Amino acid sequence: MSSKQLVYFFGAGKAEGNATQKELLGGKGAGLAEMTNLGVPVPPGFTIVTDVSVGYLSSKQTPPELKAQVETALAKVEQIVGMKFGDPSNPLLVSVRSGARASMPGMMDTVLNLGLNDATVEGLIKKTKNPRFALDAYRRFLTMYSDVVLNVSREPFEHALDEIRRDIGKNRGLSANQTHGEELKRAVPDSDLDEGHLRKLVASYEEIVKKATGKPFPQDVSEQLWGAILAVFESWNNPRAATYRKMHDIPVSWGTAANVQAMVFGNMGDTSATGVCFTRDPSTGEKKLYGEWLPNAQGEDVVAGIRTPRKIAKGTGGPDDETLEVGMKPAFDELLKITERLEGHFNDMQDIEFTIQEQKLYLLQCRSGKRSAKAALKIALELQRAGRLTKDEAMLRIEPESLNQLLHPILDPEVVKRSTPIARGLNASPGAAVGAVVFNADEAEKRALRGEAVILVRTETSPEDIHGMKAAKGILTARGGMTSHAAVVARGMGTPCVAGCSALQVDEHKKIVRVAVTTDGKPMEVVELREGDIVSLDGGTGAVYRGALALKPAALSGDFSELMAWADERRVLRVRTNGDTPKDAKTARNFGAEGIGLCRTEHMFFDDKRIAAMREMILASTKADRETALAKLLPFQREDFIGIFTEMQGLPVTIRLLDPPLHEFLPHSPEAIAATSAASGVSKETIVKRSEDLFESNPMLGHRGVRLAITYPEIYAMQTRAILEAAIEVSNKGLSVLPEIMIPLIIGKRELDICKEIVDEVAKDVFAKAGRSIPFMYGTMIEIPRAALRAGEIAETAEFFSFGTNDLTQTCLGISRDDADKSFLPQYVEQGVLAKSPFNSLDQEGVGELVSIAKERGRKTRPKLKLGICGEHGGDPSSVDFFHRIGLDYVSCSPFRVPIARLAAAQAAVRTDAKQK
Amino acid sequence: MSSKQLVYFFGAGKAEGNATQKELLGGKGAGLAEMTNLGVPVPPGFTIVTDVSVGYLSSKQTPPELKAQVETALAKVEQIVGMKFGDPSNPLLVSVRSGARASMPGMMDTVLNLGLNDATVEGLIKKTKNPRFALDAYRRFLTMYSDVVLNVSREPFEHALDEIRRDIGKNRGLSANQTHGEELKRAVPDSDLDEGHLRKLVASYEEIVKKATGKPFPQDVSEQLWGAILAVFESWNNPRAATYRKMHDIPVSWGTAANVQAMVFGNMGDTSATGVCFTRDPSTGEKKLYGEWLPNAQGEDVVAGIRTPRKIAKGTGGPDDETLEVGMKPAFDELLKITERLEGHFNDMQDIEFTIQEQKLYLLQCRSGKRSAKAALKIALELQRAGRLTKDEAMLRIEPESLNQLLHPILDPEVVKRSTPIARGLNASPGAAVGAVVFNADEAEKRALRGEAVILVRTETSPEDIHGMKAAKGILTARGGMTSHAAVVARGMGTPCVAGCSALQVDEHKKIVRVAVTTDGKPMEVVELREGDIVSLDGGTGAVYRGALALKPAALSGDFSELMAWADERRVLRVRTNGDTPKDAKTARNFGAEGIGLCRTEHMFFDDKRIAAMREMILASTKADRETALAKLLPFQREDFIGIFTEMQGLPVTIRLLDPPLHEFLPHSPEAIAATSAASGVSKETIVKRSEDLFESNPMLGHRGVRLAITYPEIYAMQTRAILEAAIEVSNKGLSVLPEIMIPLIIGKRELDICKEIVDEVAKDVFAKAGRSIPFMYGTMIEIPRAALRAGEIAETAEFFSFGTNDLTQTCLGISRDDADKSFLPQYVEQGVLAKSPFNSLDQEGVGELVSIAKERGRKTRPKLKLGICGEHGGDPSSVDFFHRIGLDYVSCSPFRVPIARLAAAQAAVRTDAKQK
Repeated sequence: MSSKQLVYFFGAGKAEGNATQKELLGGKGAGLAEMTNLGVPVPPGFTIVTDVSVGYLSSKQTPPELKAQVETALAKVEQIVGMKFGDPSNPLLVSVRSGARASMPGMMDTVLNLGLNDATVEGLIKKTKNPRFALDAYRRFLTMYSDVVLNVSREPFEHALDEIRRDIGKNRGLSANQTHGEELKRAVPDSDLDEGHLRKLVASYEEIVKKATGKPFPQDVSEQLWGAILAVFESWNNPRAATYRKMHDIPVSWGTAANVQAMVFGNMGDTSATGVCFTRDPSTGEKKLYGEWLPNAQGEDVVAGIRTPRKIAKGTGGPDDETLEVGMKPAFDELLKITERLEGHFNDMQDIEFTIQEQKLYLLQCRSGKRSAKAALKIALELQRAGRLTKDEAMLRIEPESLNQLLHPILDPEVVKRSTPIARGLNASPGAAVGAVVFNADEAEKRALRGEAVILVRTETSPEDIHGMKAAKGILTARGGMTSHAAVVARGMGTPCVAGCSALQVDEHKKIVRVAVTTDGKPMEVVELREGDIVSLDGGTGAVYRGALALKPAALSGDFSELMAWADERRVLRVRTNGDTPKDAKTARNFGAEGIGLCRTEHMFFDDKRIAAMREMILASTKADRETALAKLLPFQREDFIGIFTEMQGLPVTIRLLDPPLHEFLPHSPEAIAATSAASGVSKETIVKRSEDLFESNPMLGHRGVRLAITYPEIYAMQTRAILEAAIEVSNKGLSVLPEIMIPLIIGKRELDICKEIVDEVAKDVFAKAGRSIPFMYGTMIEIPRAALRAGEIAETAEFFSFGTNDLTQTCLGISRDDADKSFLPQYVEQGVLAKSPFNSLDQEGVGELVSIAKERGRKTRPKLKLGICGEHGGDPSSVDFFHRIGLDYVSCSPFRVPIARLAAAQAAVRTDAKQK
Repeated sequence: MSSKQLVYFFGAGKAEGNATQKELLGGKGAGLAEMTNLGVPVPPGFTIVTDVSVGYLSSKQTPPELKAQVETALAKVEQIVGMKFGDPSNPLLVSVRSGARASMPGMMDTVLNLGLNDATVEGLIKKTKNPRFALDAYRRFLTMYSDVVLNVSREPFEHALDEIRRDIGKNRGLSANQTHGEELKRAVPDSDLDEGHLRKLVASYEEIVKKATGKPFPQDVSEQLWGAILAVFESWNNPRAATYRKMHDIPVSWGTAANVQAMVFGNMGDTSATGVCFTRDPSTGEKKLYGEWLPNAQGEDVVAGIRTPRKIAKGTGGPDDETLEVGMKPAFDELLKITERLEGHFNDMQDIEFTIQEQKLYLLQCRSGKRSAKAALKIALELQRAGRLTKDEAMLRIEPESLNQLLHPILDPEVVKRSTPIARGLNASPGAAVGAVVFNADEAEKRALRGEAVILVRTETSPEDIHGMKAAKGILTARGGMTSHAAVVARGMGTPCVAGCSALQVDEHKKIVRVAVTTDGKPMEVVELREGDIVSLDGGTGAVYRGALALKPAALSGDFSELMAWADERRVLRVRTNGDTPKDAKTARNFGAEGIGLCRTEHMFFDDKRIAAMREMILASTKADRETALAKLLPFQREDFIGIFTEMQGLPVTIRLLDPPLHEFLPHSPEAIAATSAASGVSKETIVKRSEDLFESNPMLGHRGVRLAITYPEIYAMQTRAILEAAIEVSNKGLSVLPEIMIPLIIGKRELDICKEIVDEVAKDVFAKAGRSIPFMYGTMIEIPRAALRAGEIAETAEFFSFGTNDLTQTCLGISRDDADKSFLPQYVEQGVLAKSPFNSLDQEGVGELVSIAKERGRKTRPKLKLGICGEHGGDPSSVDFFHRIGLDYVSCSPFRVPIARLAAAQAAVRTDAKQK
């Protein structure tokens, strides 16, 4: 009979599977098989392959041949350990554990001590002569199996246990606050339960099950086993697991394996123990056995927090005399030897679970361990230096995203673990900040001048707040999305920002902010923060904390530079930055940017003096008045460009001409309107009226970008003049300048042609006056689906395309970025309509196809068309991989993401080469 | 020498061109050639081909061989007429006229009497012995040439002429109000000017030219000729012509021909005359010579309005004794004979210009005449019945768009010509209405109940206004676009509507509307309208008039039915309607709709009782409360569907589940909020808060369509239940029912799968309870670019696609329909970025490609996938042509456009077949 192998046995030094079979056996099963083959002491068992769970979850059936294969494997286990499953005189107990292809720690279900029933427990007592141990194992099994397989709530079990604890406690005279919850648990630990208590407990547990399910607890061990196996399969679809899969991009189609393994016990007395360890320090990467253990305990005790776990090796934190190294030296020595071997074998830091049963060491799991960016860097580079990894392999070991930890100051992760945020908003601009709450820009500036760290808190920010935003260490707003004024300006400045934090109610007038705080299980409370109160915020996660949390500074090491050098050698994609100021330009150059891919000119207008002229321009009723106002802006723009060109020292600078709708520049508050009226001589009513006229029901799809130039060509004329005059001036100083003028939001070739006339005319004039010319490029954003489709024609005029994937995502998907996060987008990701937020990671199937189409058509017309991307996807590793694969020339991202993009681009190149081989 | 023929001669019964050469010779040139060949008396001349103007307009040069060819042709003309160009003793005079491929009446320039100068005018005097005639011709030429060629303003010429008129008038004792403008012209007609006056005038005209240009008026007739030819070329690009091209989709690349022709004169005394005529009545199509003439006049006099033109044939309106038929019988008879022959030759009603010079008849132009829809219909059908056109040819003769005139009541076009609108808004819903202004729905209902016709005038409408909108004859709003509440509801109801009329300032409280009226040349005045004042509005053009304009009712004839029958036989595309009510369904069936392509369910919720339950649903905080509210809506929805299914008698009905964002249903005014609060028991604060929570910065890209079902699946469950229960009920009565359930706004397959589960579950339940099932189809809108790209996958689940080209246009082009009309879109059309508004006529290059892609990919997955389109483009003829060409199954449009779509679909089929032959 050639039926498919559904069950893979491992044990006694020989396994049917191995480490390469993660898809089939899951990570845990593959690890157990590999360890067995390596001769590592692993309790025998077998793995049911992932396909079985996939089939079961869709059909609720398992293949007919499964039963026989499981029985055969189980018999081998019985033979090796010399015990028999369900034999009252010598019972074999097993664990049943899940195991997906990727690690999903704690997300799915496990059943331990399976095989116990009213008869086998007595056999176990007889055999071990340890009634406490056997009865404790049985009551643990009853609880776990009832929860996982029978769907009985854990609560009545806890109640029954507390009942007994209280009985014991009564005799000891416990205080009133020791009769409940954690206090009671601590006062009467499980080890205080004697045989009588445990027998009573088992009886009441069996009663609970009967009451809840209408049937007695299953005494048939085979029924127990199949119940547990199917429950493990089902747990692939539990909500925790589903959420974890979404977060980590794990496809639902993978399914989970089930591992059935002979039990070993760390709780058989003082010569038994259990623990978890890493082959290195996962925070630093330092080579030492790093982990925790507990004598006389089962695995769950180490993580449950009732008993404080002890350190494994001397000198890793705890008291030396409590370490495994001191307490159980022979087991420690064997563990050290084995773990060294495993790290060597897998060529990576391992995360290992072990149990010592009556002095004998068993390994229950080994897998690559999670680590900090710093550790990842150190480990990868050490292994490469040791000749155990190639540079390519070493680079692939580092999550590009994790570099964020190294580039920004962060809140100390240890402190964060112990802290509960009072609110969460959008992670609008990365990095952490701690400071005193202030409610307006002037106060922010005043306090900052005297050296105080401040956090500017506003309902939303507007151009009038710019000086305060510059002065603040962090920005926190109650309204607005990832493209709100606060978010965009903060990212540009590199200032941490949490935006759209809707739990906040900000009263700027009374200088008070109320936060509705919901903590698990507690009624909602309203926290009030006043001016000067300290808050901490994490712009990388969107969390806001009360009080000062410890900050950890950005730490760039020699390892980091080395890694970046490798990446630069390997990558094909160039990496530019999005930057609007000389400061941005400098930061980005330090991070390795090879040019500016997006210089937004509008942010230059938000400064005090400039905004006045800008408003004058918008309020002007004739072209002549507009030109007068624009003439005032010209010198400012020219100075900006001189600064940026100088800083970029001959690297290309792509400048996008004015993009946002004009109403964004008009004043909103009555005070600002009054001020503008006074400054411009335009009546307040006219200002309000103009604002109303410019109002749009869908500004994202409105009168912005090149559409402004079609109606007011003089704006782009002024900007072109500023760019080219600046270029001449910098070039006259002997520096090289590479300006690229970029037109936003076109839908076809014609707009580009109309603007080219404007640009060429200005260029002719500027160059004539200067007596010399500067070569510059003329190109466009592709950020509207129609532009992507018409790319063939557009490339007749455009010398380069820069894909504005933010807007292209909004239009291709019909989703407003500012609104969707607070309405349907989270559910769209949860329910699998979209794998991830398309604003964080490029929607390759939709937006990606438009980018590909535009690339094909554009290059067909103009084979040397320069192609880049300047949406925020330019800093997202999986998007960078896509852009590499379709053959763009460069990505451009915010300054702090430049190193991430460099590494991601290198990894993309490595992966592509690997596939082609 | 084989140089290209650039000049085509015609004259003396033989022409080098013919009627088929419109592309080369323009319409006028081709007509003149054809008439010449037919032996019709046409003054000799020649045509310079269109290519020359195209080349000239881009390079400002003409081909070197042109000059010789013009000279040769001119020599032939001289020979035929026996006169010589520039010869002072026997001068040949010529006209120089434009002539594009398509008729563009009056849009380009003309120069008459060319060849006159100070010498030749004396020769002409001698030859004609008519100094008045010759000098009058000269001063007319001076004016026209100076204007057209030399760009000298007409104003000083008018002043000089008025000066002379006043001199003459002085002697006659004119009253003060007769010394200016039109009064003066009437008091002293040109015919009162004697030789002395004219000589004086010519002298002062020559002085004006010299002053304005710095040079004397060109005396060299050859210089005159080339000046005029180039000016005619230039006039292809004048603003009037550019606008006309945009309006009529005439490509700028066509260019214009120039026609140079020997002058004949209708102003050589009482045996001379000039006129224009049609071979039929252009309003009715009745066969009779229909036109106007003037004795002793030049062409421009007939249209100038100084002298009242006379009728040509007896019994066509004017006094019989003033007709040409009576006054110049021989010329009339010849004209009648020739025009009969021309109509026969061209097989169409002709529009003819003629001149009689000293009793000899000359034809100067013949072309197909513009006609009313009614006339077009009659003419096409008569010609078909006479065997002179095939049915296909006859159908192509009728502009589908023009059928609108026959289907809706319209404002009497004669009255409209004489009236000036006080304002213009968006043509939001076609048809005309006249009635009393009212400012709120209750007043509208009250007055309508007592039989008064009312126009509801609001800043914008909201669901609370529905009863008033139903009661009103027409709706007028100051704000909102083509998809505003007013526009959508009005189109659904078939009520005329002008929306977004921004010149209005509506004060609903004081019941007054102010309109800023700008009339050419007059200062702006503010007109106030109060309750009860009468206004007229034209929903087809967006014009609003003060007072009652005459209405013409819709007039459907037997001819119309016959044409429609032909169209139905010929077309391949099916035509459905967009309709939300049994009334819509009935109207559309009467117009020949073959099903409902879009039944929007949301409008069903705006009724008084329903909106309360809808709001309850939106304000509910739990799923259970939402379901309770939805249960109240269920019977209403079911009734709606029963009505529609019954009316459609077995034709398919595509029902779109809820689409708009929920905030559209919430109350806005304080009164409505208070009423909702009272009815629902929800506090006013909560209602306002919920409104704020639901607010979106870009609602078009927001939480709507299927996105509502992902977050609130119970809404679509209720709607599905209502549809299927209604289907069962109607089917139980023995009628056949074909429901098609349509999911809006998907971006991929997954949303469709999620909703399919909801739909299938409800269907199972409904069918189980009914003890029987009804077949229904399940499909989706394709209205987001990503959905078009993912169509291959989507078709795995969808049994049909309906392209929502309105939203697909908004997303593909990134243009908000509600905002763009009042900001940049008009300029986009004017500057040629878009040929037409993409919301009126499908953008075939962009949106059209997405439709094609979706069609290809969808049909690849599911070859029998049903494909339709339900955007407003379904009723636009050129879009219908596109949908036919790419092979959709049907178009769906508003009820009143169904006949237009039927004809357009037939024409598309005819044209496609013709191309394939």
